[in-house]
Amino acid sequence: MAHDEGINLWELQLAARNHGMPLEALRHAITPPGLHYLLIHYDVPVVDVETWKLAVDGAVARPFALTLDELRARPSEDVVVTMECAGNGRALLEPHVVSQPWLRDAVGTARWRGVPLRVVLDEAGGADDAVEVLFTGLDRGIEGGSAQDYQRSLSLDEARRDEVLLAYEMNGAPLPAQHGFPVRLVVPGWYGMTSVKWLGRITLLLEPFGGYQQSAAYRRRRSEEETGEPVTRILPRSLMVPPGIPEFLTRERMVEPGTCVLKGRAWSGLAPVVRVEVTVDGGGTWSDAELGDEGLGRWAWRPWRFDWEARAGPPRRLGSRATDADGNVQPDEPAWNLGGYENNAVQWLDVTVAWSKRAALGSSRTG
Amino acid sequence: MAHDEGINLWELQLAARNHGMPLEALRHAITPPGLHYLLIHYDVPVVDVETWKLAVDGAVARPFALTLDELRARPSEDVVVTMECAGNGRALLEPHVVSQPWLRDAVGTARWRGVPLRVVLDEAGGADDAVEVLFTGLDRGIEGGSAQDYQRSLSLDEARRDEVLLAYEMNGAPLPAQHGFPVRLVVPGWYGMTSVKWLGRITLLLEPFGGYQQSAAYRRRRSEEETGEPVTRILPRSLMVPPGIPEFLTRERMVEPGTCVLKGRAWSGLAPVVRVEVTVDGGGTWSDAELGDEGLGRWAWRPWRFDWEARAGPPRRLGSRATDADGNVQPDEPAWNLGGYENNAVQWLDVTVAWSKRAALGSSRTG
Repeated sequence: MAHDEGINLWELQLAARNHGMPLEALRHAITPPGLHYLLIHYDVPVVDVETWKLAVDGAVARPFALTLDELRARPSEDVVVTMECAGNGRALLEPHVVSQPWLRDAVGTARWRGVPLRVVLDEAGGADDAVEVLFTGLDRGIEGGSAQDYQRSLSLDEARRDEVLLAYEMNGAPLPAQHGFPVRLVVPGWYGMTSVKWLGRITLLLEPFGGYQQSAAYRRRRSEEETGEPVTRILPRSLMVPPGIPEFLTRERMVEPGTCVLKGRAWSGLAPVVRVEVTVDGGGTWSDAELGDEGLGRWAWRPWRFDWEARAGPPRRLGSRATDADGNVQPDEPAWNLGGYENNAVQWLDVTVAWSKRAALGSSRTG
Repeated sequence: MAHDEGINLWELQLAARNHGMPLEALRHAITPPGLHYLLIHYDVPVVDVETWKLAVDGAVARPFALTLDELRARPSEDVVVTMECAGNGRALLEPHVVSQPWLRDAVGTARWRGVPLRVVLDEAGGADDAVEVLFTGLDRGIEGGSAQDYQRSLSLDEARRDEVLLAYEMNGAPLPAQHGFPVRLVVPGWYGMTSVKWLGRITLLLEPFGGYQQSAAYRRRRSEEETGEPVTRILPRSLMVPPGIPEFLTRERMVEPGTCVLKGRAWSGLAPVVRVEVTVDGGGTWSDAELGDEGLGRWAWRPWRFDWEARAGPPRRLGSRATDADGNVQPDEPAWNLGGYENNAVQWLDVTVAWSKRAALGSSRTG
């Protein structure tokens, strides 16, 4: 977004109710509760867990419905997942795309516990010619001119991956309402729209699902006429904890001269991150950062660090870029599409290196 | 904000990192964790609780410093507090004020536990001629051109009120980092800038504090030349749970014909709320809502409800307004000031009454 353009009232309403992760929270391997990003298409629904059941139906041999206790009684797994909104970076695209105006804060990492979806699919016994699994949330709203429940599908192959969960715990506690209480789907490696919240129904389909969130939204296309390819797995991205201290309004940073340890995290849904590079001169030169591993598994971000000798001088533009094992690299500039998806371009951060007079805590006028 | 104006990149950065409370969370007397509003001037600081101490100094007989355990060992109180940002409603002002662009979501209610500030002041023994107490946070940034720690003061009379706490728990758990871990000030009835987070130091002053957050920010003035009056207590406000279902982008609401129970909450820091009125015709006529009381005490919002017979027809504009025991009433239109503070004008909500075809959960193409 060019500075002199603006976002409109619709977008501001969305920015106020959906939450970004303040980037200083990148310090934490697991995002502290309340700081994980949130994108809620409609409203957070009211779910009465006393009457709630998860229905499993469609092209199955044995349709059934589970209470929360019945679901929790089944074998469960823990997976740490870095989740990102497909629209992360949208507000930085030109021409401007009108929707939730994410800059680069639509990310977070949580430890989810739940029942592998495969366990429930096996109990139901899918038809041999079933091709997809449809997930229906209890959140309801209007999009593309029609009232609808939030719905997304997955191919059977994706749905049966070991790490795809029907999650009922986030970071060791029941799901918060805004993250899908009582049960949500969690699909590691995919953008967040896939991980349907407030699950009400799982339906085996004999034909691919053609609903709004699959056929109109979440496709890469450059015009309304194109069908486009679906948005699926998370492209590689790295982000940096903003160093130094911020100006309140502009968020420009001031760093004191000396060794400044730049830290951040990187992830990719396509393949493991194998490299992070850092630039301190706006992309003129790139140097390898040191990649860490906190043992959180394949689906969590990896930490990185880079020691920068910060010297006073003109403002610096910092950036980082990730590369994954399949050779996917973050681009310097984004590729545009109609929905504003998958902008994984490098995060640029402007920093001034200067001494900030240390206002000692006791220096106020105590008389 | 007029729809064709826009907010700039600076404001969007603030909107992404600071969190509004999605208004459907008004259903809850205590705001669920993660949905309380958040305004963080600089960055969330890293506080090592092993080395952290709260210093009490300045014009006192016995300066000292407390560890968290030492603070927790003192007598404590619980207070349920509705907290609101002084800038709530700023983005609806015209002419536009450039800062954190709140619409009306900068509010939340929590149960805080902590030590009455008075207890700690009494231990320190303030000088007879002390006039104010200064609170210094561990968050540091640049504002008004200077690097500074976040600082605000209170008169001794306000500081010694029974319900002013040094809070170390929020809703029964240690404070989340973003709400001021390990200890924050909580000043019930005042706008949120007063409730200094990440407290590092409490200092008795012999003269009024003249720092940035007191003398430049948080004053009602119509030009830079005016000194203006300080922003202090929360003006009356009521908000409504948006009824029906939303359109994703515009957030316009669709309600089905029939009895629609409008619900919301109302609060005032000046005096208890004694009346809430509702309009379903854009302010043409107002009717009394039914005021409830959940026994959460003087500093929490009060619930209200109003049964509306919704009939299909042209779009309706709904609104509510609160009156407190001192006769303060929410205005239909806001008063403007340079900082964009205290806009407690009526919340308008546009609603269409129509049948939304119920897309049955099982109606997808299951073959």
